[in-house]
Amino acid sequence: MVNTNIRLTLPVVCFVWQIAMIILFGVFIRYDEESDTHWVETKAHDNITSDIENDFYFRYPSFQDVHVMIFVGFGFLMTFLKRYSFGAVGFNFLVASFGLQWALLMQGWFHSLDPQTGKIFIGVESLINADFCVAGCLIAYGAVLGKVSPVQLLVMTLFGVTLFAVEEYIILNLLHARDAGGSMVIHTFGGYYGLTISWVLYRPNLNQSKRMQGSVYHSDIFAMIGTLFLWMFWPSFNSAITDHGDGQHRAAINTYLCLASTVLTTVAISSLSQKTGKLDMVHIQNSTLAGGVALGTAAEFMISPYGALIVGFFCGIISTMGYIFISPFLEKTLKIQDTCGIHNLHAMPGVIGGIVGAITAAAASESVYGKQGLINTFDFTGDFKDRTVLTQGGYQAAGMCVSIVFGVVGGAIVGSILRLPIWGDPADENCFDDEVYWEVKEEHQESIPPILEYNNHMIHKQQDL
Amino acid sequence: MVNTNIRLTLPVVCFVWQIAMIILFGVFIRYDEESDTHWVETKAHDNITSDIENDFYFRYPSFQDVHVMIFVGFGFLMTFLKRYSFGAVGFNFLVASFGLQWALLMQGWFHSLDPQTGKIFIGVESLINADFCVAGCLIAYGAVLGKVSPVQLLVMTLFGVTLFAVEEYIILNLLHARDAGGSMVIHTFGGYYGLTISWVLYRPNLNQSKRMQGSVYHSDIFAMIGTLFLWMFWPSFNSAITDHGDGQHRAAINTYLCLASTVLTTVAISSLSQKTGKLDMVHIQNSTLAGGVALGTAAEFMISPYGALIVGFFCGIISTMGYIFISPFLEKTLKIQDTCGIHNLHAMPGVIGGIVGAITAAAASESVYGKQGLINTFDFTGDFKDRTVLTQGGYQAAGMCVSIVFGVVGGAIVGSILRLPIWGDPADENCFDDEVYWEVKEEHQESIPPILEYNNHMIHKQQDL
Amino acid sequence: MVNTNIRLTLPVVCFVWQIAMIILFGVFIRYDEESDTHWVETKAHDNITSDIENDFYFRYPSFQDVHVMIFVGFGFLMTFLKRYSFGAVGFNFLVASFGLQWALLMQGWFHSLDPQTGKIFIGVESLINADFCVAGCLIAYGAVLGKVSPVQLLVMTLFGVTLFAVEEYIILNLLHARDAGGSMVIHTFGGYYGLTISWVLYRPNLNQSKRMQGSVYHSDIFAMIGTLFLWMFWPSFNSAITDHGDGQHRAAINTYLCLASTVLTTVAISSLSQKTGKLDMVHIQNSTLAGGVALGTAAEFMISPYGALIVGFFCGIISTMGYIFISPFLEKTLKIQDTCGIHNLHAMPGVIGGIVGAITAAAASESVYGKQGLINTFDFTGDFKDRTVLTQGGYQAAGMCVSIVFGVVGGAIVGSILRLPIWGDPADENCFDDEVYWEVKEEHQESIPPILEYNNHMIHKQQDL
Repeated sequence: MVNTNIRLTLPVVCFVWQIAMIILFGVFIRYDEESDTHWVETKAHDNITSDIENDFYFRYPSFQDVHVMIFVGFGFLMTFLKRYSFGAVGFNFLVASFGLQWALLMQGWFHSLDPQTGKIFIGVESLINADFCVAGCLIAYGAVLGKVSPVQLLVMTLFGVTLFAVEEYIILNLLHARDAGGSMVIHTFGGYYGLTISWVLYRPNLNQSKRMQGSVYHSDIFAMIGTLFLWMFWPSFNSAITDHGDGQHRAAINTYLCLASTVLTTVAISSLSQKTGKLDMVHIQNSTLAGGVALGTAAEFMISPYGALIVGFFCGIISTMGYIFISPFLEKTLKIQDTCGIHNLHAMPGVIGGIVGAITAAAASESVYGKQGLINTFDFTGDFKDRTVLTQGGYQAAGMCVSIVFGVVGGAIVGSILRLPIWGDPADENCFDDEVYWEVKEEHQESIPPILEYNNHMIHKQQDL
Repeated sequence: MVNTNIRLTLPVVCFVWQIAMIILFGVFIRYDEESDTHWVETKAHDNITSDIENDFYFRYPSFQDVHVMIFVGFGFLMTFLKRYSFGAVGFNFLVASFGLQWALLMQGWFHSLDPQTGKIFIGVESLINADFCVAGCLIAYGAVLGKVSPVQLLVMTLFGVTLFAVEEYIILNLLHARDAGGSMVIHTFGGYYGLTISWVLYRPNLNQSKRMQGSVYHSDIFAMIGTLFLWMFWPSFNSAITDHGDGQHRAAINTYLCLASTVLTTVAISSLSQKTGKLDMVHIQNSTLAGGVALGTAAEFMISPYGALIVGFFCGIISTMGYIFISPFLEKTLKIQDTCGIHNLHAMPGVIGGIVGAITAAAASESVYGKQGLINTFDFTGDFKDRTVLTQGGYQAAGMCVSIVFGVVGGAIVGSILRLPIWGDPADENCFDDEVYWEVKEEHQESIPPILEYNNHMIHKQQDL
Repeated sequence: MVNTNIRLTLPVVCFVWQIAMIILFGVFIRYDEESDTHWVETKAHDNITSDIENDFYFRYPSFQDVHVMIFVGFGFLMTFLKRYSFGAVGFNFLVASFGLQWALLMQGWFHSLDPQTGKIFIGVESLINADFCVAGCLIAYGAVLGKVSPVQLLVMTLFGVTLFAVEEYIILNLLHARDAGGSMVIHTFGGYYGLTISWVLYRPNLNQSKRMQGSVYHSDIFAMIGTLFLWMFWPSFNSAITDHGDGQHRAAINTYLCLASTVLTTVAISSLSQKTGKLDMVHIQNSTLAGGVALGTAAEFMISPYGALIVGFFCGIISTMGYIFISPFLEKTLKIQDTCGIHNLHAMPGVIGGIVGAITAAAASESVYGKQGLINTFDFTGDFKDRTVLTQGGYQAAGMCVSIVFGVVGGAIVGSILRLPIWGDPADENCFDDEVYWEVKEEHQESIPPILEYNNHMIHKQQDL
């Protein structure tokens, strides 16, 4: 018998790590100047006349949308399994709450450690970045949903956030690639990280829990809550940290259009895949989102409205075909069990997004962007002020590769750690079952309608006869 | 047997129309100056000192609220049927995604085609207007919910958006009526459009699917998600495209108050309608929203806080009475089968809203609005700078009539098209059933509690004896 | 037999109170200058150059988040009971809609009645405050959930809002305590108000409705919708009415961090409390929110990021332990039946929040806040310009006591009124049952899977033999 008792490990991990967070925050984290009471002086110094120019007002609405995507979006998207909704929403809640704290530290050390004071100064943009970082780990959770313990998820998140901060530093700072919505940094990395972990944790006898796989009617509707909040708020996701003004404006428009296009082609392919043209909820719940992933890099570029539609068009097709053809292949041939199909929703569209980003960057021109617009969009300043768009395209492509390498190598290492027999993961026949880690009330008595209870009674009487 | 196979039609329509969208967007749609990289120059030219004056920051939070209303609000409001929740949320998702693209084109051609370049320049306000336009079609969907195929819905949306753009052009541009929240343009038009289509598609034997009508406990709670998101975000809906500053501020306050008042009178009438004073979920889900509809035109006016409460007061009464008395009458006498009761939630309150708008416009005065305030609120500039408030009231009423005419005549024509036997609509006995267009997993085995499975087993044994 | 017929009382209360609201609004309530058409002149007078400086843009996004917390957050959090979800969401909707109107009047009379005109001028900040005031009453609803009639809830809200406005006036205006997120004013008051009412209404035979207590699988997922929207938007709640600029910015950051920390310790204690380390949904749904409550007072202070984490750390522990140890004690020994455990989610964390606020205020210093920052944060202006931080700490503690006294004494009085046998409250055996006040459709026929229907048929045949 497998031991799934986590009464020792889970509380210990939660307490120790949370205490570590408190200590590290005490040492390193401070308010940035726009969230500090000294802003009244900073403001005067910077000739800011109105409080509305505080970055809070540029970014807070987008931040809240992103926050909803992380907790309701990812959480509910994974409730589709008939008896793993507690785990889906609840563990998502747990690992995201830990992950965002750790992300503030890791991203702070790599991106914004003040050399003079040795402190990390945080503001609303840091919170968005922390949520983004967590998204990478939640994507990975999708691949192993139902097959791991909450302790394993926390370990996955600890290493996931760490790896994320490093690859992000390499891609955004060293290579100076642009990736505002994280096609590469978030989705490609998170996708391959999760898939590789799932591959290392391969369970040959997973069909022993076949009865718990798949959805029921109501669980599919719950999952649509996740889908829709992700879909609706994706324009905020891709525009949350882009440049003030036209940058945020354009990224939101592009993502809005791209996602609309994805819905139509997803429906088309889903309908084509069934004999009588019926639609499959799995496709509607997932592939409709692929366009948002694929525009993560290019959303802030002048990809033009019809360009956004084209990206969405192909992503809907590719992602839905992924669910139909590639997922079964991955499972049978490559031994990758991908519960939520993150390969089709994040990994593939993420790679497409990286490529789209590289091409559109390489094709950027002063005639389209304007002289200053080009400099602003690609941040051709400081060390990078002489970079050409063609070079930029090359670095974008290099960034793409970095994210894949980090995902695969990192996933292999972390997967190996997670194979240790100390984490309390479920037996093959108990996967996808909330009973393992949750107090689930018995519903038998309540859910039997009176008329049936009567029948039961009659049956027993008959048996007695 | 009726043929509900849509494996050919649905994919073809989705692909062809989406490709048409891409081509038309390529030809016509461009970023407006506030979402273009050239904004850095435009800004300097217009003496704008801070990025925060980009229209994005005035309207994006409202846009996202409206977006939630369209996809989660309308989608979940229609999940109340016991076995049509996939169709409610899923087809809503599909037609809205197509509709918003087509709306950007249609509204662009009519309202903002640049004569010099022949292009349509879009920004965040265009996205809101596209969502608004889609709302009209989703309202119409409510009347035919469960009785049409997704292909029919797409056709309804294609023509609905087209008609919408034309009536909107006549009402807002030619008549110069004000209708920020769309009492006339959105709700009256959408309501009568849907009702007339439903009248043309009358199914005399619809009671053959009686077992599928009505709700179950959980489906009513899902529907409340839709209700609440519509109710909470309606202040954003009515203020999304009103004037910057006090216009948006006032529209939000008025709608907030009006909707609160509606809830109390809805509850009162619902309770009065039952012998023991019990409440009916249908009323709570729908009539509580009537106030938002009815304030669509007047929300930006100086209707005063108590005026908003009065509008809400009567709308709650009238809408709930509609569900109790008028809907059965419409079905029996006028042969209009209105699945969601859009007559009570959109058509009637929309007409009330148009009337309230006409009266409050006609009663506007410089003493209340201030000289400049009056000009700003009713946009008495350019060709209309000599218009009096009384004339304005008349044009508002004329706008009301235009929206009804477009709804009824347009609905009759489109309804006739939808009667063609090529669209794969369900048979009378299969209406309101997701099985027709969706892969619905069999739940029998899973949902039977173990004790019953045992009984079944026993029964079969007994039968064998 | 208990009479639960509310066909007379509920409509009468709704109609009469709503008409009273209309009259009082007509007499007292007007648009404030930023939502009035005269703003065009006011603005010119105040040298405001851009519409974006209208308070609407500082506060509307936060307002909408708070609005979602009130209607979806509180409403769905209480849907956890297996058959009281209509009552949870529906009555929450009703009382909040009445309460916010009454709150605008009560808070207006006490806080912003213009002495010259005798009018109350409202804007977006008033709407937020009205929602806050309603929150106090909805907290109280949590204690009596399932045991009272909607008429009783409306009476509770009428008095609750009244008491709230008075205690708020004493605490914020007379004592000049700071309480932006309402640890004292909202949560402590609301918590003790509800608990005392529940104590007065003690039902010794409540176990007669034991079959209706507790949750089922799906109701627990619905409740998580409430939990997550409360959790995600709490940073908006605590920052909604703080100072423009750094005040709002800092309050949001602090609350975000604090709540993340609470999740980890809640999970830890929940897991510790079960033999095999399984988690309990009751804890996850409720205790994860305690950190937001406890930071209500101090969120706008320079409590520093690690300080916020520490508050969250202890609140998760205390609140979860409350569910495990204190709630059963309260019920058995003190005869307080607390359906939702508001003592653990609101009352205790509210008191902690008051204490944290008093300590952090007393410990504030110019070196941390800056000279002007200190004055701004604690509003040491006018009559209070000579107050020291130590004195401020004392007044904060005094405010804490005022809120408890108002809760307990007010609750005792209102509870006595609610014991009158005229309100139509349910019998002990019908508590927690939607059937009492709602039309609930019979699901027996529909929910029986076909195979079982067949069996029923067979059984009946057998019986006939």
